[in-house]
Amino acid sequence: MTPGSKNTQAAPTAAVLLIGNELLSGRTRDSNLSHIGQRLSSRGIRLMEARVIADVPERIVSAVNELRGQYDYLFTTGGIGPTHDDITADCMAEAFGVALPEHPEAARRLREYFASKGIESNADRMRMARIPEGATLVDNPVSIAPGFHFENVFVFAGVPKIMRGMLESVIPTLREGPLIEQVSLLCNLPEGMLATPLRELQADFPDLDIGSYPGQHLASGNEGYRVELVARGTELQRLESVQSQLRLLVEKLGGETY
Amino acid sequence: MTPGSKNTQAAPTAAVLLIGNELLSGRTRDSNLSHIGQRLSSRGIRLMEARVIADVPERIVSAVNELRGQYDYLFTTGGIGPTHDDITADCMAEAFGVALPEHPEAARRLREYFASKGIESNADRMRMARIPEGATLVDNPVSIAPGFHFENVFVFAGVPKIMRGMLESVIPTLREGPLIEQVSLLCNLPEGMLATPLRELQADFPDLDIGSYPGQHLASGNEGYRVELVARGTELQRLESVQSQLRLLVEKLGGETY
Repeated sequence: MTPGSKNTQAAPTAAVLLIGNELLSGRTRDSNLSHIGQRLSSRGIRLMEARVIADVPERIVSAVNELRGQYDYLFTTGGIGPTHDDITADCMAEAFGVALPEHPEAARRLREYFASKGIESNADRMRMARIPEGATLVDNPVSIAPGFHFENVFVFAGVPKIMRGMLESVIPTLREGPLIEQVSLLCNLPEGMLATPLRELQADFPDLDIGSYPGQHLASGNEGYRVELVARGTELQRLESVQSQLRLLVEKLGGETY
Repeated sequence: MTPGSKNTQAAPTAAVLLIGNELLSGRTRDSNLSHIGQRLSSRGIRLMEARVIADVPERIVSAVNELRGQYDYLFTTGGIGPTHDDITADCMAEAFGVALPEHPEAARRLREYFASKGIESNADRMRMARIPEGATLVDNPVSIAPGFHFENVFVFAGVPKIMRGMLESVIPTLREGPLIEQVSLLCNLPEGMLATPLRELQADFPDLDIGSYPGQHLASGNEGYRVELVARGTELQRLESVQSQLRLLVEKLGGETY
């Protein structure tokens, strides 16, 4: 697969756009990206790229238009609440070249929800019912205010619990690709000793993606390094075969596997 | 300040490029971005954008060239170890249009370090001494293998502890901007009630960046919502002024601050 190709036969590709000043200032540590990555992997969709950008309209519009043209799916998080710094819906309407009217069904859900909570349907809260023309609502099982999807773009909230609910509600509608399976092995050899045999193994298994990830040193008593060897691919038999070879390799080099 | 402008008078701008398949597959949750964001903030450098990309050479090269042209500084993490999936140095040399020879000082440091540990200076380990021609070494206080910097691009390891050491070693060399200070206030009012007065306050303080961040509900007994109100800017007096106004605002609406 050419990365990022929009080939309808190959595995679908995706990008994520995380929107919010707080992710760049260091105030908030994002937890949405790794969750989306895992969930897409589990459906055989390849997450190719993610971007984190500030609440600056022209940057949001241009990133959306660049990424939705380049990948099969684009998922965005953040900026769809009721306050002045929530500008994502406006930016999406501009990127798509459509109006941003109040969506009758979104407005109905919000009014019903606010009434049930005894809170006022004021103008700020009803801003959350403005949806780009032609977009479809994405259910919000947590706090009702919906996300939306327009063509291949899915617009989610940034609060992790809400984002996850929205993602689950659209996951069944996405085109699936061949499932990416993974095998892994923890060992106590340094990467510098494993590098050549790993390179050879990767050459023998060009259909798999073999990686090595150094971690902390093992607790004392277990001298040495901790490196995780990971292979990813779509054919379980090939993965099992590479896993036995990885194990043999570590043993041949005098290491232990965990 | 126009976001991303390369104006030498204004606050310096920066981008971060996180390189690694494992960050997109969901295997690894990045912790480098928020740390870099905080450290740059503390020097008055504005982090404008971050990207996460896979270990695909052409994507790394094009992202590096795009971002280094657009911002005053570019910081990259990941892909500078000894194994076959460590391709960052090769990609940087290609992006800069220079060769990738063994750097004598990097090679000396590595040989000395390996000798002291009683491990072999094999070809894979010595790959970490290949540095793009014309680049300067960035010290690695943890495991010796250096990062490097070329013009406005800083190339760091991905392992958080090593990345942090490298960042600290270059921080004093970066051009500083006006410090961004922050005040914040936790309150128990919903965003939908705060939105209009916050919008008005933002209009009164156009030099500040006012944000509201909804969190989990307060523990039972403390009915209601938890929203953090944050203002950021360079003038402490203005921030103190907006902080008192935020407090008054919450009290006027019948809320409590924490």
